[in-house]
Amino acid sequence: MTGSSAPNLRPSAAYRRRVEFAETDMAGQVHFSNFFRYMEEAEHAIWRKAGMRIAAEDREHQWPRISAQCDFKNRLKVDDEFEVRTVMAKVTPRTIQWAHTLVRGDTVAATGTVTAVCVKKLEDGSLKAVEIPAAILDRLRAVLA
Amino acid sequence: MTGSSAPNLRPSAAYRRRVEFAETDMAGQVHFSNFFRYMEEAEHAIWRKAGMRIAAEDREHQWPRISAQCDFKNRLKVDDEFEVRTVMAKVTPRTIQWAHTLVRGDTVAATGTVTAVCVKKLEDGSLKAVEIPAAILDRLRAVLA
Amino acid sequence: MTGSSAPNLRPSAAYRRRVEFAETDMAGQVHFSNFFRYMEEAEHAIWRKAGMRIAAEDREHQWPRISAQCDFKNRLKVDDEFEVRTVMAKVTPRTIQWAHTLVRGDTVAATGTVTAVCVKKLEDGSLKAVEIPAAILDRLRAVLA
Amino acid sequence: MTGSSAPNLRPSAAYRRRVEFAETDMAGQVHFSNFFRYMEEAEHAIWRKAGMRIAAEDREHQWPRISAQCDFKNRLKVDDEFEVRTVMAKVTPRTIQWAHTLVRGDTVAATGTVTAVCVKKLEDGSLKAVEIPAAILDRLRAVLA
Repeated sequence: MTGSSAPNLRPSAAYRRRVEFAETDMAGQVHFSNFFRYMEEAEHAIWRKAGMRIAAEDREHQWPRISAQCDFKNRLKVDDEFEVRTVMAKVTPRTIQWAHTLVRGDTVAATGTVTAVCVKKLEDGSLKAVEIPAAILDRLRAVLA
Repeated sequence: MTGSSAPNLRPSAAYRRRVEFAETDMAGQVHFSNFFRYMEEAEHAIWRKAGMRIAAEDREHQWPRISAQCDFKNRLKVDDEFEVRTVMAKVTPRTIQWAHTLVRGDTVAATGTVTAVCVKKLEDGSLKAVEIPAAILDRLRAVLA
Repeated sequence: MTGSSAPNLRPSAAYRRRVEFAETDMAGQVHFSNFFRYMEEAEHAIWRKAGMRIAAEDREHQWPRISAQCDFKNRLKVDDEFEVRTVMAKVTPRTIQWAHTLVRGDTVAATGTVTAVCVKKLEDGSLKAVEIPAAILDRLRAVLA
Repeated sequence: MTGSSAPNLRPSAAYRRRVEFAETDMAGQVHFSNFFRYMEEAEHAIWRKAGMRIAAEDREHQWPRISAQCDFKNRLKVDDEFEVRTVMAKVTPRTIQWAHTLVRGDTVAATGTVTAVCVKKLEDGSLKAVEIPAAILDRLRAVLA
């Protein structure tokens, strides 16, 4: 995601949401940490659309986040309806960087990225980064197409 | 709320929701404090259906919570879809007690109540409990009917 | 907990805390759901003082919450320092009800209870309520004495 | 903050914290969004040490966040004690970028930055970016020295 002017050139998915009261802070707007939760919700919605559950208990892979970033451009307030538009910004053998644009009407509220790494849980309980199975990538990409 | 077996005898409203990943805790289920957020969301949805916004910035009245209670009966887990069924359990001149039943499929996940008091902000910034305007009650009841 | 006037007649523990910005909402005070988190933090501090960790990964027992209740009496605001005073209000063979009084200076901000049940995880992953081991109760009581 | 190997070359402040149960998620570790709350808490502690309150109700200036970023390097788990070490990474006439290193023992759990802009509330309620008063900067720097 390189800007807010044309967030839709790449295949993207849209996730709609409303700001809830408990997500605001005393400054009268959404607390900035909740933007990261909104971006994660949008990503997980893509997994569900692809017929997968990123966090199912019996899943072979897990996807811990290794990096997250967000630029806050306009406030979101209680009851605001907004949309998170999501693209796969960058894929490496073991990571996916998701880029999100949060839009309320014609206004970009925020742009951000969250990068997740594909890991497997070893028998001793530790996590090991592994290559993303092609089948998973294919299914995610099909949702965004 | 007198039980989980017949939560719908009184006029109620239903609010649908899905459990998000960030709402879980290390025990693998929704953290109990989030049930109170779900109940509040359901109440606020009733206000919106009634054409009002409980937390609009220019509103004359505010509705701080004075009491909340919840019995947790069955776990909610990530991706679970559930419904919050809400009735007005008790109305006094200055308070409304909302009773909520959280239901996943045929299973009652929780029952709880949240009591809010109608207050006005005085010129010195302090809050004073006042009688609930009849027009507000009428509109809320119309949604539940 | 029978009132806010004499919260210390029973052996209790005190947990000190400050209100953080992210815990406030647009009404300029702590969101009511966070009071339940404060009460849980105070309980967990008691477990640690007793030399135990309620949520250690290898623990034999877990303590899901089956009921929670809170009366909100006075607002807590950002930067407020407050204390959670905690007693064991009621013990049954399988449950502990903790009663908490949140106090800022001389002001009672809230009183509430949280009831937890002692469970064991069975081989099939399900949870079964079991009797609270006497050694655990003894250690918890020693902290409160 | 240019790396995790020598986080203390610039004057910094340290904020100590413990991971609470409600901050974990079903993956058994702190949810990544909470790292941003930890960083904000550490910054606010610096304001308090400087004898100021960033979020006092009568304050002339507010400090909305315009950008935040975090690299997650090692998991934090329930009961973990950790320290947030904070420096002023970059100051412009209207913004302060705080750089934070979260450290558990000898392990860097995360490094991140949060950038805040100094604004004044105008009479119509809108916010306008203004120059940071020199006296405020001086006091913040004195804490870090």
